[in-house]
Amino acid sequence: MTQRSTPRPSPATALPLTEKAALTSGSGDFVSEGSEAAGVPVVRMSDGPHGLRLPRETGDGGQLDLHSAAPATCFPPAVALGSSWNPELAEEVAAAIAAEAVAHGVHVVLGPGINIKRSPLCGRNFEYFSEDPLVSSELGGAMVRGLQQAGVGASLKHYAANNQETDRMRVSADIDERPLREIYLRAFERVVRRDNPWSVMASYNGVNGVPVAQHTRLLTEILRDEWDFDGIVVSDWGAVRDRVAALRAGLDLQMPGPGGHTDREVVAAVESGALDEAVLDRTVERLALFADRATGGTGTPAPFDAETSHRIAGRAADQCVVLLKNDDALLPLDPARGSLAVIGEFARTPRFQGAGSSQVTPTRLDVPLDCLRELAAGAEVRFAAGYTLPGAEDGPSDAGLADEAVRVAESSDTAVLFLGLPAQDESEGFDRDHLELPAAQTELLRRVLDVNPRVVVVLSNGGVVRTSPWQDRVPALVEGWLLGQAGGGALARVLFGAVNPSGKLTETVPLRLEDSPSHLSFPGEEGRARYGEGIFVGYRGYDAQRREVAFPFGHGLSYTTFGYEDLAVREDGEGFDVTLTVTNTGMVAGREIVQLYVGGPDGSRVLRPVRELRGFASVFLEPGASAEVAVRVARHDLAYYSEREGGWKVEDGRYRFEAGASSRDLRAQAEIDVAGDPSGLRLTGRNTLAEWFEHPVGGPLLMEAFAKARTDESASALADPTMLRFLAGVPLDVICEFPQSPLSPESLPALADEVEARTAAL
Amino acid sequence: MTQRSTPRPSPATALPLTEKAALTSGSGDFVSEGSEAAGVPVVRMSDGPHGLRLPRETGDGGQLDLHSAAPATCFPPAVALGSSWNPELAEEVAAAIAAEAVAHGVHVVLGPGINIKRSPLCGRNFEYFSEDPLVSSELGGAMVRGLQQAGVGASLKHYAANNQETDRMRVSADIDERPLREIYLRAFERVVRRDNPWSVMASYNGVNGVPVAQHTRLLTEILRDEWDFDGIVVSDWGAVRDRVAALRAGLDLQMPGPGGHTDREVVAAVESGALDEAVLDRTVERLALFADRATGGTGTPAPFDAETSHRIAGRAADQCVVLLKNDDALLPLDPARGSLAVIGEFARTPRFQGAGSSQVTPTRLDVPLDCLRELAAGAEVRFAAGYTLPGAEDGPSDAGLADEAVRVAESSDTAVLFLGLPAQDESEGFDRDHLELPAAQTELLRRVLDVNPRVVVVLSNGGVVRTSPWQDRVPALVEGWLLGQAGGGALARVLFGAVNPSGKLTETVPLRLEDSPSHLSFPGEEGRARYGEGIFVGYRGYDAQRREVAFPFGHGLSYTTFGYEDLAVREDGEGFDVTLTVTNTGMVAGREIVQLYVGGPDGSRVLRPVRELRGFASVFLEPGASAEVAVRVARHDLAYYSEREGGWKVEDGRYRFEAGASSRDLRAQAEIDVAGDPSGLRLTGRNTLAEWFEHPVGGPLLMEAFAKARTDESASALADPTMLRFLAGVPLDVICEFPQSPLSPESLPALADEVEARTAAL
Repeated sequence: MTQRSTPRPSPATALPLTEKAALTSGSGDFVSEGSEAAGVPVVRMSDGPHGLRLPRETGDGGQLDLHSAAPATCFPPAVALGSSWNPELAEEVAAAIAAEAVAHGVHVVLGPGINIKRSPLCGRNFEYFSEDPLVSSELGGAMVRGLQQAGVGASLKHYAANNQETDRMRVSADIDERPLREIYLRAFERVVRRDNPWSVMASYNGVNGVPVAQHTRLLTEILRDEWDFDGIVVSDWGAVRDRVAALRAGLDLQMPGPGGHTDREVVAAVESGALDEAVLDRTVERLALFADRATGGTGTPAPFDAETSHRIAGRAADQCVVLLKNDDALLPLDPARGSLAVIGEFARTPRFQGAGSSQVTPTRLDVPLDCLRELAAGAEVRFAAGYTLPGAEDGPSDAGLADEAVRVAESSDTAVLFLGLPAQDESEGFDRDHLELPAAQTELLRRVLDVNPRVVVVLSNGGVVRTSPWQDRVPALVEGWLLGQAGGGALARVLFGAVNPSGKLTETVPLRLEDSPSHLSFPGEEGRARYGEGIFVGYRGYDAQRREVAFPFGHGLSYTTFGYEDLAVREDGEGFDVTLTVTNTGMVAGREIVQLYVGGPDGSRVLRPVRELRGFASVFLEPGASAEVAVRVARHDLAYYSEREGGWKVEDGRYRFEAGASSRDLRAQAEIDVAGDPSGLRLTGRNTLAEWFEHPVGGPLLMEAFAKARTDESASALADPTMLRFLAGVPLDVICEFPQSPLSPESLPALADEVEARTAAL
Repeated sequence: MTQRSTPRPSPATALPLTEKAALTSGSGDFVSEGSEAAGVPVVRMSDGPHGLRLPRETGDGGQLDLHSAAPATCFPPAVALGSSWNPELAEEVAAAIAAEAVAHGVHVVLGPGINIKRSPLCGRNFEYFSEDPLVSSELGGAMVRGLQQAGVGASLKHYAANNQETDRMRVSADIDERPLREIYLRAFERVVRRDNPWSVMASYNGVNGVPVAQHTRLLTEILRDEWDFDGIVVSDWGAVRDRVAALRAGLDLQMPGPGGHTDREVVAAVESGALDEAVLDRTVERLALFADRATGGTGTPAPFDAETSHRIAGRAADQCVVLLKNDDALLPLDPARGSLAVIGEFARTPRFQGAGSSQVTPTRLDVPLDCLRELAAGAEVRFAAGYTLPGAEDGPSDAGLADEAVRVAESSDTAVLFLGLPAQDESEGFDRDHLELPAAQTELLRRVLDVNPRVVVVLSNGGVVRTSPWQDRVPALVEGWLLGQAGGGALARVLFGAVNPSGKLTETVPLRLEDSPSHLSFPGEEGRARYGEGIFVGYRGYDAQRREVAFPFGHGLSYTTFGYEDLAVREDGEGFDVTLTVTNTGMVAGREIVQLYVGGPDGSRVLRPVRELRGFASVFLEPGASAEVAVRVARHDLAYYSEREGGWKVEDGRYRFEAGASSRDLRAQAEIDVAGDPSGLRLTGRNTLAEWFEHPVGGPLLMEAFAKARTDESASALADPTMLRFLAGVPLDVICEFPQSPLSPESLPALADEVEARTAAL
């Protein structure tokens, strides 16, 4: 946290009402309003989060044209960076972005985005890290630290539950409390509590019928009161419909500057008494602190240098590539084997980022084909485009291109096919409605496989694509995501083995779209999206439904292999120290991402995922080397969110700790009994017979009461197992409704009091 | 509807407050309170719905001991009767029940139950007809007619959304408006509107947080105001927690008689002004009408005769058996082939009904083994128990029994294995947690198949069981459900071909429990069950997820085959006359249940099932004979329920009408363009660019406005396809927030008004 060195009078007392109101909305597209009188500096912002979207000309105006931006380094977007599972790397990337921001006078970068990939169709999935909140929070939090330690503000977005582009500016995400807490708010909670972002961006959508920009519970009660957030809430651009309601709910800064009419609404509301001026004053104080932090220059940015940043982007990309399949060690490519066919327009015209507000004009661009030629060590590299991309100039037909590509592949030792989604298929602003690659590409692949089985497919895509129709025929498959401007070099290094791939999936690749857990309710209709799968998002859902998948969450291969041994779990009051030994059992050095999942307890009172990621760590090992890997799991992370008790609850029982190379490749495990949290609930007449009998005090007490009143009928009922199961689910107060009841309704309160008294006396 | 012949003063004016209040709760377990002073007769009720649960001794008290009842005919429970898809048959069964009720002085039978089988696990599925609301309403409505035409009241239950037994007395079924209307209320709506039940039973559970017994929207606004219900709402037994709130919500009769304390609460509430006496008066009027109807004796019951009823029960059972599989025409059994092994305790100790309030003490019981011997025409029939049922007396071990059964099977021509769920596995009061048959039975089956592949499996079960682990090895599979007291004869007739089976599944048999659409949210937790699959219940969900199933909804084979031809659809303003020609293309006479599904329209604004059952008909045909089958589909049945517009909406577009022998065996189809209902919505600034452009008046008007204000920037944005898709989802009022906007926020209301004006002028 930065602090202004010279104290300054509070702007809330120093300024007249109109000037305070003016501070609560922007003065331009990406510029906040400042106040010289009160010493509140202007804050300049830039879209992010994997690079800066800079105005073409300097000046305060900023601009919203998504097509025209001044050059800035395009780092790997979150879909790729997430696949590194490397928070240190994310922090380094963010620090480089911060250096560039400082060089351009930008105070705040609008990112990172840590929304959960609820559906593979979401058009903005390339801007998000994972279907899992832990991965999202670890990578997103690292970016917050990387920016802010350099003195540049982060804006954690899009808070909250902005998990689709379809109707995103109106739709209400209808989410039950438990999935809201355990999945959709969880990454935000971790980052806010630990990494203290200076701003959080309120999303366009609503949650449970209330626009987020006006959502007091989300913006104030949860974010500030529960999580101790002390930054500002800024609106997504254009997300405020009712400025006064938004201010009251806790939204501090409306962006962009809508021309002053909402400032006048704020003034009028204060003057009429509809808005307590103290609410405005608190917002103004927060805005002043935010402006101080963002412009304080107390961070330690590195000097910006385009070449250095490009190298960082490339080194980052190295860790983002995911090797999905590598039968018979087809990869890495061996230049000594002879000619290589490089096929696919994406090899020459790389797709390296997604469309929308995060679009960067790169400072330079590594072309995969060129990079492959550089590393080919003299081996012949022949290129064939194979297909055209939409919007290309008129040229040879796809059919002609495919014929040529097949000829090239046939006469080469190995064919590397670059396939992927055209830019038009995925963008901020709309969702996909299928997961398929273009038919021309899969048809080309089929034809190439027919003439040469030694095929490596390299994918370029921001959201997952369906691989199941062809993956069995393809011996080697590389998921290249969108790798930023230096991705071409990373792909070449991985393909030729200069880099041993180490990325792993942070989202499941399903066999079919219809298998995705959100399929029956995505993207909703008529302005509402019911999150019907609840907590069973991503692998939590595929596992609960025991669905086969194309590639599971956490999957990623290496050119070496790793052994897992000796998992041990040591519990202390606060959590669990998990250790295991990992050994590089192969022939080359490599990094392994070790994942720790926890499942259980058996007999849970609530629906639980089979397992949930509760920690991860990377270890780099030379061939033959071993290391102890340690993962800490907080006790809190075993809890579920109890809507009934209004908080997190650890249940009694036996939990399974499993370490693995993916969510479906578990290599070592241990079970441990955990004592649960005490329940905050007391027995009443609304509790069932079973709940009374399970209670250590209530059970015996009820038996006493029954014994006194016992009738032949009740005795015979309790003796029959089917009848007993029938009665087990009946609350005592319903039993009392029946004339033969051994208990009277009047007796229940005294019985419940007696349970409390005896329990207290224990 | 029956009417009292002599007019009677209104009990609401004739009675003092305390006596009016007394009428609103029962005087005993199954007896209402009457009033001699006001001429309101006492109404005697009996549990149902597939037979009477009669008190052992006569008298007014009734009783709740589920084990002890006087003998009454046990007809096929709803799971079986539904499989007949035969409303006339259901009406006949209900008429027979009514005759028996009249003979025993019972005025009202508590049934039918028409809840939707949301999950195959629900312990009470045997009491319900289907996973589909149309089947439920056609069969349930027929039972209402059959009872009431004989002068016996029906009590349509359990209203509403009582789709699980787990925590049924407290759980809130959390259901969005569209699935509530389209799935869970739809059968109730059809029966109430068409068949006018004299009472509806309010269920134990809550809906969206409000106990049904206190749910004004369900009990008054929807049931009475929308559907014109004029009967009484009776509580499920013990379902009322707050008598005054329940009365206010529209619950007329609290059952059973809780001893008068709630009557005193009603009196106190009226005296304190907390309850408007007019509310009580309306209830008392309704109770008086109900008592008149139920005791009026104006129906035409047949005289009761136990033998006749047993024969009706048997004839009904004939139509309920579902032949799931019959490879190489193994069935019907040919006595000439030699000895028959009948294996399985269920052949000797049949399971013919479920446990709980619907349990009947049968007047007699057909034992399948005996019935098979009768029809075996001299062929040797050898029996082996094979396994024991839980709770059986000590006897030979399961292992010994299985060994013996294998020996018997090995030395017989064909083995008929009776397998099924023990009574302890399914009951009112609790749900199953798996779909498996007992392991001893499936192991026995495996061993029998190893020695004799000519195996017929006959299932006895109230809820579906998993067949996928073994169904491929079993050539013939008969789903016998729970068939009532005369089911043994029906099974023998079907197995020997005296009856050609014609039942079809009214619920899907999944490959695995995890495939069921409700799997991720059933049965909920902490007192709430989120119906996360929305409208995608049963086959609607399996189809939407393109899941393979063991046996699809609507499936059922015959000993003959049927051809479908010449589907034609003729539209009039009110709906569609669908006709097709069905031909018996096999060698024996048989009945075919022809199902009509409608899907579409393509490009719907909302999520739609692939297809939904919209009509069905039975046709009985001699070999070689053809008949035209006609099915009427109301235009209304093409509608979806629009939460936004608060009503049913038929969308414009092309609909697919498909006739089939099952939901996945579609034999004939036609497509038809339908003009949709006008929208009740007007364009505003909250509508997106795409919605404006799609509007015939709004689109051109907006283009005019843009043309006037056009900037280079907006022109370039509209020229780029990705950008245009991006903008398409942006509401006009958000576009106005941006400084470069070609529109101002102030201009939007006028623009919207202009759309209205020009539209009105068209």
